[in-house]
Amino acid sequence: MKLGGNFFEDLGPGQLLRNPVPRTLGEGDRSLYIALTGDRNPRNCSDEFARSLGFERAPLHDLLVFHIVFGRTVGEISLNSPGNLGYADLRFLRPVFPGDTLRAETETLGWRETSKGDTGVVWVRTTGFNQRDEHVLQFYRWVMVNKRDPGTPTVADDAPEMPAEAGRAHLAHLPYPRIARFDASATGGSAFWEDYEPGERLAHPQGMTIEEAEHQMATRLYQHTARVHFNQHQQQASRHGRRIVYGGHIISVAHALSFDGLENVVGMAAWNGGSHTNPTFAGDTLFAWTDVLERIDIGRDDLGALRLRLVAVKNADPSKEALPLKVTGEDGRERYAPNVVLDLDYIALIPKRAVAV
Amino acid sequence: MKLGGNFFEDLGPGQLLRNPVPRTLGEGDRSLYIALTGDRNPRNCSDEFARSLGFERAPLHDLLVFHIVFGRTVGEISLNSPGNLGYADLRFLRPVFPGDTLRAETETLGWRETSKGDTGVVWVRTTGFNQRDEHVLQFYRWVMVNKRDPGTPTVADDAPEMPAEAGRAHLAHLPYPRIARFDASATGGSAFWEDYEPGERLAHPQGMTIEEAEHQMATRLYQHTARVHFNQHQQQASRHGRRIVYGGHIISVAHALSFDGLENVVGMAAWNGGSHTNPTFAGDTLFAWTDVLERIDIGRDDLGALRLRLVAVKNADPSKEALPLKVTGEDGRERYAPNVVLDLDYIALIPKRAVAV
Amino acid sequence: MKLGGNFFEDLGPGQLLRNPVPRTLGEGDRSLYIALTGDRNPRNCSDEFARSLGFERAPLHDLLVFHIVFGRTVGEISLNSPGNLGYADLRFLRPVFPGDTLRAETETLGWRETSKGDTGVVWVRTTGFNQRDEHVLQFYRWVMVNKRDPGTPTVADDAPEMPAEAGRAHLAHLPYPRIARFDASATGGSAFWEDYEPGERLAHPQGMTIEEAEHQMATRLYQHTARVHFNQHQQQASRHGRRIVYGGHIISVAHALSFDGLENVVGMAAWNGGSHTNPTFAGDTLFAWTDVLERIDIGRDDLGALRLRLVAVKNADPSKEALPLKVTGEDGRERYAPNVVLDLDYIALIPKRAVAV
Repeated sequence: MKLGGNFFEDLGPGQLLRNPVPRTLGEGDRSLYIALTGDRNPRNCSDEFARSLGFERAPLHDLLVFHIVFGRTVGEISLNSPGNLGYADLRFLRPVFPGDTLRAETETLGWRETSKGDTGVVWVRTTGFNQRDEHVLQFYRWVMVNKRDPGTPTVADDAPEMPAEAGRAHLAHLPYPRIARFDASATGGSAFWEDYEPGERLAHPQGMTIEEAEHQMATRLYQHTARVHFNQHQQQASRHGRRIVYGGHIISVAHALSFDGLENVVGMAAWNGGSHTNPTFAGDTLFAWTDVLERIDIGRDDLGALRLRLVAVKNADPSKEALPLKVTGEDGRERYAPNVVLDLDYIALIPKRAVAV
Repeated sequence: MKLGGNFFEDLGPGQLLRNPVPRTLGEGDRSLYIALTGDRNPRNCSDEFARSLGFERAPLHDLLVFHIVFGRTVGEISLNSPGNLGYADLRFLRPVFPGDTLRAETETLGWRETSKGDTGVVWVRTTGFNQRDEHVLQFYRWVMVNKRDPGTPTVADDAPEMPAEAGRAHLAHLPYPRIARFDASATGGSAFWEDYEPGERLAHPQGMTIEEAEHQMATRLYQHTARVHFNQHQQQASRHGRRIVYGGHIISVAHALSFDGLENVVGMAAWNGGSHTNPTFAGDTLFAWTDVLERIDIGRDDLGALRLRLVAVKNADPSKEALPLKVTGEDGRERYAPNVVLDLDYIALIPKRAVAV
Repeated sequence: MKLGGNFFEDLGPGQLLRNPVPRTLGEGDRSLYIALTGDRNPRNCSDEFARSLGFERAPLHDLLVFHIVFGRTVGEISLNSPGNLGYADLRFLRPVFPGDTLRAETETLGWRETSKGDTGVVWVRTTGFNQRDEHVLQFYRWVMVNKRDPGTPTVADDAPEMPAEAGRAHLAHLPYPRIARFDASATGGSAFWEDYEPGERLAHPQGMTIEEAEHQMATRLYQHTARVHFNQHQQQASRHGRRIVYGGHIISVAHALSFDGLENVVGMAAWNGGSHTNPTFAGDTLFAWTDVLERIDIGRDDLGALRLRLVAVKNADPSKEALPLKVTGEDGRERYAPNVVLDLDYIALIPKRAVAV
């Protein structure tokens, strides 16, 4: 691992990087995840409920697993990054429990210098493993990375095509135990897979204000070290003048907010894609809504999938005012409205009515 | 569970609500409780000391158990609440250990619309259970709840009488192991049950300033979701213009401060009653004192009980200035002084001299 | 333990104080330590990696052990302290694992009233024990303590000599398992003991901004109660007008920053000495560098020691500007530059090339 991290010039395609610092997860990580994000899904916090779903005990939150695997890769991929541009084909491949040790490997897939010449985009695929070398997670992402030497052009112009969505084959072989019975009194929800209609918008009535100490603690918990999140001395000279909240924390908070309104989710199966569309800063209050895009039958009689769009906005309450997702600028180009901070296309798992008790 | 929570109109008497989201507690919750409140009682943080008291290992803090059970009930009872008005007859019925899973049930006992007609008071009794369906906690509380439709009067006028104090029968059958020997070198205290005199005021010399990130993390840890604690976007339009600290966090911080001065407490047995008398905000510094109200012999030779009044004040140090508990307003009515934020009448357990080593 | 803590007059030499509140450490403490400091050393966070080093599982961070033992002593030694002046001969004597219970004993060794007469310096030696009464840590420190009665002079003038460095005998009998094989892909480092050269300066490129909630949570986690860290109501009348960050938190953050640049450290063996040279406040951004002072062969073929000087500075990035360690004042006296906040002389353990795989 290079001191100060890799720069764009270091990240040409075809490399397989063993990302350092394996990490054993435990009960402390579970509690901190709840304290920092507000997660209330009983699948993640009740051993009793998780056993009723077929697990030995409560798995750790899927997004905690994502953050830990992502955190492994920052030192080599995105320490010198002004921002992560997007995700594709993220698959949750196996539940993770306290005591498991995660590590990551990342392949560089492509790169392209930006027109200004001071940065470039790097495409990578990361795989997370547990201590038995079983795959627990994989995802593609592309990220802006600073050049070490902005004055010297590279010939990097090799942008790979990203998967348009997570493979349907993945959904057909989900590593999810068979649900014998689903007691909705534990979740407080009443909607099952059959009740969600494509086109429906689910409101999430709560809002959550983010503090500096909170996003810093979350990001350090994941051992994610990108300096834009922690170093105010550096950031006060930046365009924003402030530390930027790790985009993954936004995903976690928005997903926790969705517990009110998006009922009976028992796990994430995959992400098709996602973007951090604007930065979030301490003091911002997050709100979220979910659009139901598609109801997917995965060939099980206990469990179905929903393709969802989770949108997070800041400092505006979508239950009180109409908020456009995108706006057209003076240049005629359409872009995300300035208070939209997340647009995530993902697949959630919801029990079918047949297992309701 | 209704999206956005119940309103006053939903909470008529005679309902039994199974509050959702069972929660398994673990070592992470113990550590976070210490980090957020400053608790130092070795009964809660030393397995060795707890074994000397007769426990298998250190139980979780009684107040952590309270907060977790309370947190279960917020979604159905107090999500739309401007404030909790009081508690009565709270009983700690069984110690809770890491690995236990708690759930809650709440009965609605009575309701009364307020004279202004936009809110009402709801009286409830909540019971907390562990995974063996054993009772771990019960309490009464009454809470102000917003009406869904302030313009339409209800006929709700059915205020039940609350127990004046926790039952003495509870104290006679406490689920507390027999203390064989009590080594006060572990607590640093020298006072035993016999040494506390009714009428005595115990000073607690420390003060603790509360930060937004701290009370938010504590309240999320308890999966308590009332928006007044988290949503600055909403709160800036409120009377206070700020987020309000969860009253339970004030109880925990004040109780932790009482460790210096109220010596050798080995647990809470019950609360007779309690009120959050004024709101607390981030930046406020809390202080506390304890008045000894009564020494209660519970018929054991190892352990006695003390009826105590724990008062918390903000931004004034009771060891440096005389602070009135109540003041008389221009209207001639007596009310709590504006910097008094908690008045809790509770029963603590203290070993008798006979078991001192 | 005296209410309000001991004052200078109470701390004459020759006392052996059994410091109260034994503390069982667990997985929650490990997670919080990572979240609060940013530690990424896999020896402390990966059971798999720790086993490859010869441990049964990942030990808790050496500095977490230090903070917990230190925290035990505050109530009797430094509750009324304007500041800790220095450390000497600190030895890590045995690894600590989740489930271990730590306690502390402190001997008072000497005292000297300061010329102004309102405070004095107290010299002590603290020993930390686990639940098997095995020594896990010992250290000397000297600390300024307020007098109870500033107007009455004492005759205290008995300053003991402090050890100039941690005993070399300690290094010859380190309680460190034999390292069979060292897989540097887990650390991301490439430097081994033989690669470090005395005189070398190691840059640590990251910076970390400290928030009030973070240092308060860390300090409470250690059950360290000195009021300068928590009580803004008191502190606003002080010289600084603000809460002061616990010096130990600075050591932890600086040490975590050193992970980038000081490669393949597998533990701390000892401190020769250390000083908190200026106060740190919330909002300050910490940076650090390490000077290699000496390479010490401890007679093992798997493991060597490095004597290092860890310097932390605030609000200035040593990778971008030359920062003097000391400056000469108008009075001609040399003192630490005002942004230097830590000067720690310690001994780290690094594997030798022979065990690299």
